[in-house]
Amino acid sequence: MLKTIPSILSPDLLKILMEMGHGDELVIGDGNFPAASMNDRVVRLDGHGADEVLKAILQLFPLDTYAENAFLMDTAAGDTVETPIWDVYEKICKEGDPAFKGFNRLERFAFYERSKKAYAIVATGETALYANIILKKGVVV
Amino acid sequence: MLKTIPSILSPDLLKILMEMGHGDELVIGDGNFPAASMNDRVVRLDGHGADEVLKAILQLFPLDTYAENAFLMDTAAGDTVETPIWDVYEKICKEGDPAFKGFNRLERFAFYERSKKAYAIVATGETALYANIILKKGVVV
Amino acid sequence: MLKTIPSILSPDLLKILMEMGHGDELVIGDGNFPAASMNDRVVRLDGHGADEVLKAILQLFPLDTYAENAFLMDTAAGDTVETPIWDVYEKICKEGDPAFKGFNRLERFAFYERSKKAYAIVATGETALYANIILKKGVVV
Amino acid sequence: MLKTIPSILSPDLLKILMEMGHGDELVIGDGNFPAASMNDRVVRLDGHGADEVLKAILQLFPLDTYAENAFLMDTAAGDTVETPIWDVYEKICKEGDPAFKGFNRLERFAFYERSKKAYAIVATGETALYANIILKKGVVV
Amino acid sequence: MLKTIPSILSPDLLKILMEMGHGDELVIGDGNFPAASMNDRVVRLDGHGADEVLKAILQLFPLDTYAENAFLMDTAAGDTVETPIWDVYEKICKEGDPAFKGFNRLERFAFYERSKKAYAIVATGETALYANIILKKGVVV
Amino acid sequence: MLKTIPSILSPDLLKILMEMGHGDELVIGDGNFPAASMNDRVVRLDGHGADEVLKAILQLFPLDTYAENAFLMDTAAGDTVETPIWDVYEKICKEGDPAFKGFNRLERFAFYERSKKAYAIVATGETALYANIILKKGVVV
Amino acid sequence: MLKTIPSILSPDLLKILMEMGHGDELVIGDGNFPAASMNDRVVRLDGHGADEVLKAILQLFPLDTYAENAFLMDTAAGDTVETPIWDVYEKICKEGDPAFKGFNRLERFAFYERSKKAYAIVATGETALYANIILKKGVVV
Amino acid sequence: MLKTIPSILSPDLLKILMEMGHGDELVIGDGNFPAASMNDRVVRLDGHGADEVLKAILQLFPLDTYAENAFLMDTAAGDTVETPIWDVYEKICKEGDPAFKGFNRLERFAFYERSKKAYAIVATGETALYANIILKKGVVV
Amino acid sequence: MLKTIPSILSPDLLKILMEMGHGDELVIGDGNFPAASMNDRVVRLDGHGADEVLKAILQLFPLDTYAENAFLMDTAAGDTVETPIWDVYEKICKEGDPAFKGFNRLERFAFYERSKKAYAIVATGETALYANIILKKGVVV
Amino acid sequence: MLKTIPSILSPDLLKILMEMGHGDELVIGDGNFPAASMNDRVVRLDGHGADEVLKAILQLFPLDTYAENAFLMDTAAGDTVETPIWDVYEKICKEGDPAFKGFNRLERFAFYERSKKAYAIVATGETALYANIILKKGVVV
Repeated sequence: MLKTIPSILSPDLLKILMEMGHGDELVIGDGNFPAASMNDRVVRLDGHGADEVLKAILQLFPLDTYAENAFLMDTAAGDTVETPIWDVYEKICKEGDPAFKGFNRLERFAFYERSKKAYAIVATGETALYANIILKKGVVV
Repeated sequence: MLKTIPSILSPDLLKILMEMGHGDELVIGDGNFPAASMNDRVVRLDGHGADEVLKAILQLFPLDTYAENAFLMDTAAGDTVETPIWDVYEKICKEGDPAFKGFNRLERFAFYERSKKAYAIVATGETALYANIILKKGVVV
Repeated sequence: MLKTIPSILSPDLLKILMEMGHGDELVIGDGNFPAASMNDRVVRLDGHGADEVLKAILQLFPLDTYAENAFLMDTAAGDTVETPIWDVYEKICKEGDPAFKGFNRLERFAFYERSKKAYAIVATGETALYANIILKKGVVV
Repeated sequence: MLKTIPSILSPDLLKILMEMGHGDELVIGDGNFPAASMNDRVVRLDGHGADEVLKAILQLFPLDTYAENAFLMDTAAGDTVETPIWDVYEKICKEGDPAFKGFNRLERFAFYERSKKAYAIVATGETALYANIILKKGVVV
Repeated sequence: MLKTIPSILSPDLLKILMEMGHGDELVIGDGNFPAASMNDRVVRLDGHGADEVLKAILQLFPLDTYAENAFLMDTAAGDTVETPIWDVYEKICKEGDPAFKGFNRLERFAFYERSKKAYAIVATGETALYANIILKKGVVV
Repeated sequence: MLKTIPSILSPDLLKILMEMGHGDELVIGDGNFPAASMNDRVVRLDGHGADEVLKAILQLFPLDTYAENAFLMDTAAGDTVETPIWDVYEKICKEGDPAFKGFNRLERFAFYERSKKAYAIVATGETALYANIILKKGVVV
Repeated sequence: MLKTIPSILSPDLLKILMEMGHGDELVIGDGNFPAASMNDRVVRLDGHGADEVLKAILQLFPLDTYAENAFLMDTAAGDTVETPIWDVYEKICKEGDPAFKGFNRLERFAFYERSKKAYAIVATGETALYANIILKKGVVV
Repeated sequence: MLKTIPSILSPDLLKILMEMGHGDELVIGDGNFPAASMNDRVVRLDGHGADEVLKAILQLFPLDTYAENAFLMDTAAGDTVETPIWDVYEKICKEGDPAFKGFNRLERFAFYERSKKAYAIVATGETALYANIILKKGVVV
Repeated sequence: MLKTIPSILSPDLLKILMEMGHGDELVIGDGNFPAASMNDRVVRLDGHGADEVLKAILQLFPLDTYAENAFLMDTAAGDTVETPIWDVYEKICKEGDPAFKGFNRLERFAFYERSKKAYAIVATGETALYANIILKKGVVV
Repeated sequence: MLKTIPSILSPDLLKILMEMGHGDELVIGDGNFPAASMNDRVVRLDGHGADEVLKAILQLFPLDTYAENAFLMDTAAGDTVETPIWDVYEKICKEGDPAFKGFNRLERFAFYERSKKAYAIVATGETALYANIILKKGVVV
């Protein structure tokens, strides 16, 4: 633990967030997200909701101002499940970074393809369904 | 995540708990415990209280019935800090395993020496002070 | 060994089952299945029938409810061998998970291609022929 | 699997048995034996009784004719548990190798010290208690 | 060394033979075969003739009964060198496994391509020219 | 780079600072300090003065309040070199952490012994002589 | 540190510069450059301006005389940001190597593609934007 | 060092030469050759002329008698540099192996492509320009 | 394989022989020698007699002229087994190196202690008993 | 290769020289020195005389001004061999660094013990006998 750094962030995760540069993407997966089969760089934060993790990350991590910077995995066609977690995420992002411009929704398998090219995946224990997001890093000035 | 297994336990931690045998010891360290300098086998569960972790572990992990099976790091001589977390731990252990026989207190550096010989250390984000414990594994019959 | 976890499951296998997410696939190969040439992640359970292994896995591992979730390697065209093991598997799956919807049969080389993309392979010592199956993981809610 | 080799023996275990030379020792631990904390070379055979494993090993592995060649972990002083598995082991050894001269019993912690110096440990799923043995390898002529 | 296992087989080679499954292929290369540039899994048996190695392998390794199971690297077009070693190999295979159905000859570069996809290569010290073979593994029943 | 984190701190260094716990020690070595021969965990910050590094570290890293928390390598007996850098360090520490209680001086080889037991060493490019310090980490509350 | 070698260059960087040959390329990235996602060989020089690093490198590293030898990442279309750092780089290169023939500008994603094929990337802490360059190594005669 | 083996050959290089088989190729690069970016298997012989290295290698390494067995990197179109080193190489090869049939010249980038597929590269310190060669290994009979 | 080098020597063994210097020792163990438990550097030459191996090694490897340079493992006290292999070894050494001064016999466990400090062990398949030797390397002039 | 750096120094050696700090020691061994058994950090410069290597190293590497900084391995008692190489070394050191104060001679096994604690060993191909030296690094100011 260190002063001023949210204690939910592990040393490995902080190292990864620091290594990322402009345009690199970070996936925050829910507890059922197939993180380990998508990417070699996975940080597990088992037992935590993705909302707490998102909030902590945005204290340090700037969103990209040159491009779309936030993505959600969309529900499957025909699936009528409610996704109240999306509103939670939206609120956290708005409060966390003025560069946030709303989420883009990606179809499940498009989201997977993007996750494979991401810099890293944070595997949370989020129990809500369809609770996966991607953030694109901006510049620190 | 799997059915029936507490979601706070990471895959690495479960693997370690399974590998341990009769008499092997597990340290659950608080957020300030020097885990990485004590042992090569460290599982980080940043951001979690040690009480939640302890509770989840005892659902799967039997305490030793042949020997003292639970240890606390004692307060420094002269330190008058309150340690209400000890009562929390005591309650969880009593409810979690009938083999629990109360905690033995170890002086700080004796606790460190024992941690170096333990099988593994779980590094939690517990914010209470003097909140470190050691559990000795029993047999599964 | 741990309380409540079937003792036939090795620490490595349990870690793998926990790491897998929604849509990831697990191959359970018989004693002649070329596991090591199909996948880098192989857990060996030599000397065990695939039926015992399957039964233990389904106590913890949920089948996918969004897609076909169970596959068999079909017999070669013209091969008249009997495959009574298939009935055994069918019974175990039905009892193990209500989401089971019956097996899909894959031609031998199609099964191999799918195995190469699977998350992991469990190499059993099953002596029955044509006794290989693939399970697709669902969500834990 | 190969012709003439008992299928319960894994590739890693066979490799280890072949690498061992005159005087090297092999531990066969029961399901509660702390194998991973005793030795870096551990082969897991989860879910198998130690008797099946012992029988298979003795088909290939000669006992030492120059020294005591078989050891049991003795019961704790005052522990009145029955150990019928010892008779099973005795019978298997007698039938498996004419060089077998009966078991020597080692006190628990003496057994642990010897296990640390052994060439390797086979971690079985044997559920009997006090069911750990050490075999000393002889020469193949 | 172990009882009943030909002493020419190294621990690594035996492990590899055991890991191989139905349809996996093994190359036995002569002393000039470019083994290390063809495959990552190479077992060296320097100084041994390929005939002794072949004979030992067939004591344990069953040939495939579902497909062509043995291949030779053919002589170069126009090369009039004699290849008496082929008769030696033929005799050993016939005596070693009733499933042997004669050798198929592969042109040099076709043989190389197949070697790259093989499970492993045994690099012998065989001094005869054109003395390379591929064996396809069958099932153990 | 991340928001609020001094950009002179590398990802590896931040990870190490986070992993450290109560009582662990960090060496900040000057450009001539034999860092690589003292410790396996070395972070190089070539070309930077140790003062800038010290200042940045103290923004995040709390000093120990239970023990002496800062050490200097003393000049060799008889060496009359001036060490104005010590005043610079003193000033930075005072401003950086109220727990700072002044430096203890350690004889050169005593400093080396302590460095071997430290958690990590930061190798700076500090050109001043006798410009090595050790910090002991305190608790984050 | 060594005599005559600029102290800002780390041991790893010097090793890399020496290993490079005629035609190999080196990227010097600014603090926001996504170095770790572009290349496996990354040397971090956090906290340093790219100008100091460039100057030090050119003392040892010859530019290619057979081809274009210096590249800049161009500003995005429509971005009106000033890039005074480019003049600084130009001056350093002119003074550092007579073979310097001016910079070629590459569009952002073309620059990224080239970075992926480069021999290595130096990740500086340069705070100017659009401050990334590529150097092509020439021959030492 | 060993009896009869030229002392300029390093242990790693000799191992590589022995591992190579019929048709495998070895690159001998001059001091400016980009060896490390062309191949994962590089042996450095810094400070040595390529002629001494070539001479030593040919004492042990037979050239291929079935195909072109020696290649030079050609000068760039329009480059009028003299290449007296080629005559030196020619003389050494003629004296070193009767199978030598003269050099084939490859255009620079064709030479690079071939180097990427070679078994290994020896990086010498040869100061002559255009002083790179490729040798194809023959059979030892 | 290479010209002039005995083909029984593997690439790894030759590399090891070259790396050894004045005073380093090499163990040549028989088929029952516990090579893998004595030393981390083991080269297996399964299936070969130690005499062939010894002969080949002495073609390249000089014995030490400054000290005792050859050792045998002595028979156990009371063991009346014949050891005709010793005469074979003696003859090979005499013919192989004029510096050979006869064997010194070491008691079994003294031989083991020396083997642990040796540079490497060659594990042959020698079937004679008490057929282990140690050679001390001399200088190449 | 780089400008101003002696081309006999390999990238690995330069990295090591840079990593070394005040008081660290470097061994330059002759062709018969048992480098690999003395130290894990060995750089081979086969085929080079130690004098050329020494000369190149001293261009970059400062000797210690606080302590004895140069050591020779002494001849064995009673050995009357001439050691003219010592004069060569003396001359190079005198010309290379004014801090050189003459060589201290260490008995052979004392030299070995010191080599084991050195930071690294350079294994040259020097053919002179008793041609081993140790240099102690000083500070760069």
